[in-house]
Amino acid sequence: MSELSLLAKNARAAQRRFAAVSADRRTAALRSLAEILKHRMAEIVTANEQDCAQAEASGLSDVLLSRLRLNAKKIETLCEGLHSLAESEDPVGRVMRRTTLDDDLTLTQVQSPIGVLLIIFESRPDAVIQIGGLALRSGNAVILKGGREAKKTNAVLVSCIQQALQEQQLPPEVVVGVEDRASVSALLAMDESIDLVIPRGSGAMVRHIQESTRIPVLGHAEGVCALYLDAAADPVMAAKLAVDGKCDYPSACNATETLLVHADFLPTLDHVGASLIAAGVQLRADKSSLPHLPGAVAATDADGSTEYGELTLAVRTVASMDEAIDHIHTHSSGHTDAIVTQDQSAADRFLNEVDSASVFHNASTRFADGYRYGLGAEVGISTGRIHARGPVGVEGLMTTRWLLRGAGQVASAYGPGKKAFVHRTESTED
Amino acid sequence: MSELSLLAKNARAAQRRFAAVSADRRTAALRSLAEILKHRMAEIVTANEQDCAQAEASGLSDVLLSRLRLNAKKIETLCEGLHSLAESEDPVGRVMRRTTLDDDLTLTQVQSPIGVLLIIFESRPDAVIQIGGLALRSGNAVILKGGREAKKTNAVLVSCIQQALQEQQLPPEVVVGVEDRASVSALLAMDESIDLVIPRGSGAMVRHIQESTRIPVLGHAEGVCALYLDAAADPVMAAKLAVDGKCDYPSACNATETLLVHADFLPTLDHVGASLIAAGVQLRADKSSLPHLPGAVAATDADGSTEYGELTLAVRTVASMDEAIDHIHTHSSGHTDAIVTQDQSAADRFLNEVDSASVFHNASTRFADGYRYGLGAEVGISTGRIHARGPVGVEGLMTTRWLLRGAGQVASAYGPGKKAFVHRTESTED
Repeated sequence: MSELSLLAKNARAAQRRFAAVSADRRTAALRSLAEILKHRMAEIVTANEQDCAQAEASGLSDVLLSRLRLNAKKIETLCEGLHSLAESEDPVGRVMRRTTLDDDLTLTQVQSPIGVLLIIFESRPDAVIQIGGLALRSGNAVILKGGREAKKTNAVLVSCIQQALQEQQLPPEVVVGVEDRASVSALLAMDESIDLVIPRGSGAMVRHIQESTRIPVLGHAEGVCALYLDAAADPVMAAKLAVDGKCDYPSACNATETLLVHADFLPTLDHVGASLIAAGVQLRADKSSLPHLPGAVAATDADGSTEYGELTLAVRTVASMDEAIDHIHTHSSGHTDAIVTQDQSAADRFLNEVDSASVFHNASTRFADGYRYGLGAEVGISTGRIHARGPVGVEGLMTTRWLLRGAGQVASAYGPGKKAFVHRTESTED
Repeated sequence: MSELSLLAKNARAAQRRFAAVSADRRTAALRSLAEILKHRMAEIVTANEQDCAQAEASGLSDVLLSRLRLNAKKIETLCEGLHSLAESEDPVGRVMRRTTLDDDLTLTQVQSPIGVLLIIFESRPDAVIQIGGLALRSGNAVILKGGREAKKTNAVLVSCIQQALQEQQLPPEVVVGVEDRASVSALLAMDESIDLVIPRGSGAMVRHIQESTRIPVLGHAEGVCALYLDAAADPVMAAKLAVDGKCDYPSACNATETLLVHADFLPTLDHVGASLIAAGVQLRADKSSLPHLPGAVAATDADGSTEYGELTLAVRTVASMDEAIDHIHTHSSGHTDAIVTQDQSAADRFLNEVDSASVFHNASTRFADGYRYGLGAEVGISTGRIHARGPVGVEGLMTTRWLLRGAGQVASAYGPGKKAFVHRTESTED
């Protein structure tokens, strides 16, 4: 067995022991980790400075460099996050459903960790602690593959987590790091040992992983989000939502990339256009909208289905809401799409018919986010339709088990002309 | 675009329209279908007789022939099933979670159909109506690939479903049949158009499908279930549960295949052994248990991890519960495993530590079943850890969407030093 197979196999065995301990012990490990990060802060900062120096020398962009940097203040924030996870409810064993099947025959569906997760991320070493913390809380094992540029920092952070586990007599094999790219290819083939892959990075990276593995992948390759200005949109609100959706954080996956405009709204489009132009946005307008958008340029075919990730916005005219919805189903990535309208029945129809993970009325597409949704720590945003969809919190790392407690009952005693099941739903409270 | 790509693409488009109509209309289609099956009964029975005659001539086994046969009585039962689905709650749009993010900013997570399902099944044409009915109830589209031997019957049944849809002015493209095997290979490559594959058939068939597609597969290739007789097991109960687990329906996936026996229980194993032998079971016993099981044969290495599907049972001795749990984690298929014991703390430990989809105390492994669990119609039993696990009801055909209703809020207004989110959990009742 290769070293990597053994690592994954050991992670699975350790995870099973880890999930079976009481919640208190996982909580204690989270608190230990926060303490350890403070104690080992100098070591972490030194490793990070070495990573940053090397990255700077190799010409990493300023944006990526600022993501890579881990200073005392960022570490403090990570520790706060760990304490907040320590205070949050432990999901392992949470009762989802309880049914009395018959006298002394009770079925309980409980939450249970998925098992072994492979997390692939770029640049930000903070992710090691954020994801490691989620694993500690949820009873999962994680194999972490970070970016090469953060190698030294990541190694120290993983060793901090393993120290926290050891201090609490918990198996350190549940949080492990791997370094080289070749390992990723090998791990992506281990669909027997790894249950879920969570890639956090560029669309190209996510797509490559989706195409290279039969392990389920939680995430999204693209965020092509549309804002539809209905005939009955309020022009002032439309401008506000378009500017926020495009400009608040242009490289985010929930940024607005396409403005769909009902033909009847075109005469009032000038305020929206002027606001966007004033905010520095390049507008790529189709034929019908171009005359209403001074300063816009003519769109090409790719506009309307492109994730720009910068201050560029496609504008497309539609003759009806049907056409808007068709456009979304054809060109959007099923991430987040929004309607602006004062017409309640139009809003209801849009919310009912648009088949995207998040569908909004009179709100910025930028709200599609685990923190904003109140899910606590965010695992990722999924555009898949299986397991979890949209912003995913810690529940996305859980599956369930069915526990049946009996008194010697046999199945052959039930059926037509024999005993009947009661199937009484009980409270899930203890 | 190939004919099959078009079929899948049309199914997706039709499914979106179908999911957006009111629940009443899906209910009406279910009731129409029951009427149509009665009206067209002669046609169905004739097609089925032709299929049966051909299958008999080609030497199909009696067991498969009886599964293939569809008579008036079976059709009545199918109609009852449809009426019961018509009366059940429509899952589309059911509110799973409601959160107030701020004044006039409300987030709702609603159930939504997964989309396009590919169902591959063998022999039983009843499955067309059962699965078609589930699709009508849940707003999904299904592409059905049945067994070649049921070709004529399946074609009539699919046309009945399409007629029911048309009678209710609903798109008939949401339920379609395909016939040849080559279609299946082509469809399994369409991970853009098909969201979930549900194979219902032999383990070999399921394994082949799992290995040939990147589309998520819901199901199980194997059911290797263990019954663990703890040191503190009641011998009479142990015998009852072993006989029911093995003999009630030996070819079922939830049948017991392995008996794990604590060494301390060996002296009292004779009653269990005698009961199984009396029920016609061949026992394949390991060295330690063999002397306690008159009539048993010596086990080989494969025994203990084999799904026999017949009246054969492996017997393995373990020195401790740890060893029993290790055996299960190594050799069982994670489907259903049970402990027999009068020791409550041993039972609690087993239920807490065994990482299988269903884990039982003092109950037959045969209870692992959607109907017995009270889930209504069963979609399948999943040994996967993603999306759904164990017996899966109609909820396994659903995903969710997040709907946000606002009044023009922008994300940039929230954050440190700015507005704060309320994140108040609201009742999910209307």
